[in-house]
Amino acid sequence: MGVNAAYADAIDSDRLEDWPAFFTERCHYRVTHIENEQEGLPAGVVWADSRAMLADRVAALREANVYERQRYRHLLGTPLLLSQSATEAVARTPFMVARIMHEGQTQLFASGVYQDRFVVEGDRLLLAERVAVCDSTVTDTLMALPL
Amino acid sequence: MGVNAAYADAIDSDRLEDWPAFFTERCHYRVTHIENEQEGLPAGVVWADSRAMLADRVAALREANVYERQRYRHLLGTPLLLSQSATEAVARTPFMVARIMHEGQTQLFASGVYQDRFVVEGDRLLLAERVAVCDSTVTDTLMALPL
Amino acid sequence: MGVNAAYADAIDSDRLEDWPAFFTERCHYRVTHIENEQEGLPAGVVWADSRAMLADRVAALREANVYERQRYRHLLGTPLLLSQSATEAVARTPFMVARIMHEGQTQLFASGVYQDRFVVEGDRLLLAERVAVCDSTVTDTLMALPL
Repeated sequence: MGVNAAYADAIDSDRLEDWPAFFTERCHYRVTHIENEQEGLPAGVVWADSRAMLADRVAALREANVYERQRYRHLLGTPLLLSQSATEAVARTPFMVARIMHEGQTQLFASGVYQDRFVVEGDRLLLAERVAVCDSTVTDTLMALPL
Repeated sequence: MGVNAAYADAIDSDRLEDWPAFFTERCHYRVTHIENEQEGLPAGVVWADSRAMLADRVAALREANVYERQRYRHLLGTPLLLSQSATEAVARTPFMVARIMHEGQTQLFASGVYQDRFVVEGDRLLLAERVAVCDSTVTDTLMALPL
Repeated sequence: MGVNAAYADAIDSDRLEDWPAFFTERCHYRVTHIENEQEGLPAGVVWADSRAMLADRVAALREANVYERQRYRHLLGTPLLLSQSATEAVARTPFMVARIMHEGQTQLFASGVYQDRFVVEGDRLLLAERVAVCDSTVTDTLMALPL
């Protein structure tokens, strides 16, 4: 899906302001980890239910100057399509994210799977839901760039 | 190939019992490393020639409770098709596998290439052969989850 | 794009001599990093403007026996197509490269994005330009295998 490639490129190229536009106006974005998800705990470490909240998060990250201190590189696998209709698709897509610190060290920062629901709006495919389920329970995502 | 995405998802989502069904009943599954492979040593660190043997391996991993102690995340590249007919395809697919330990650390556990022969059975594409050739000679795959 | 899979396979399988053939005879290949690129510094750490220069580099790497000491494993994302015509395509493709040392350690060596211009020559898609922009400013690429 080209939309996944564009999503990752926006974040990794420091065009964070483009990130909310990948979502529908009312949406569900959440970063959580596998144990919380299996226990059905709804609240993740990062949470938003509208494009406006995503834009607020970008503003907060800019304020905190987080991009000065780190960069991300997303690598996504092939989406596993769980269901598909003319207007909607549900898919799981695995990811690995490397974090590159300002001083140069690169580390495998996070791995996991996106649980997504895409919807067609006009000629675009938008995310109505993206839950990033991290494999590790200790990923430090509090002041992190979006997954 | 959707089958590769489904294969990785089964392992990484702890649905190990689904893993043997990606193979034909008589099959060849092997985990080895590049130096053994180049010297033509047939025996790898993990080896099976039937779906039943793969199921036995899953049972042994459950017995050993290996999933309590670690998780995997596979990320696969685009398959490089070496030959293709109406009933068969031979392909090489690169992989990286992250291991996430119970305490939370994530490390790049293994990298390498799948050397695969897929066959069509009914409406499914099954693995008649998958040889996972690891790049490193020291990957600890003895009691590991499947690659 | 099958050409990206074949490109990575040639390097990671130690068929370095096949690598220059992925480029047009006059070409532009460069390895640089994000800060240099943003400041418009044209010179990267590795640089070539012809297939012959790429072949020279392979010869130098063989002379230095660099492959005895390390292997690479490339994992590439889906290309993000920026423009496309009947004869040309401009794309960005993210990459992660693991380095496997002779003693067995595997590390995430480099991440970044290829900035590519492909052209059609006969029935092949060749690289007229590939700029590998690394995310880290400190990747040790001086005597490294090609990215």
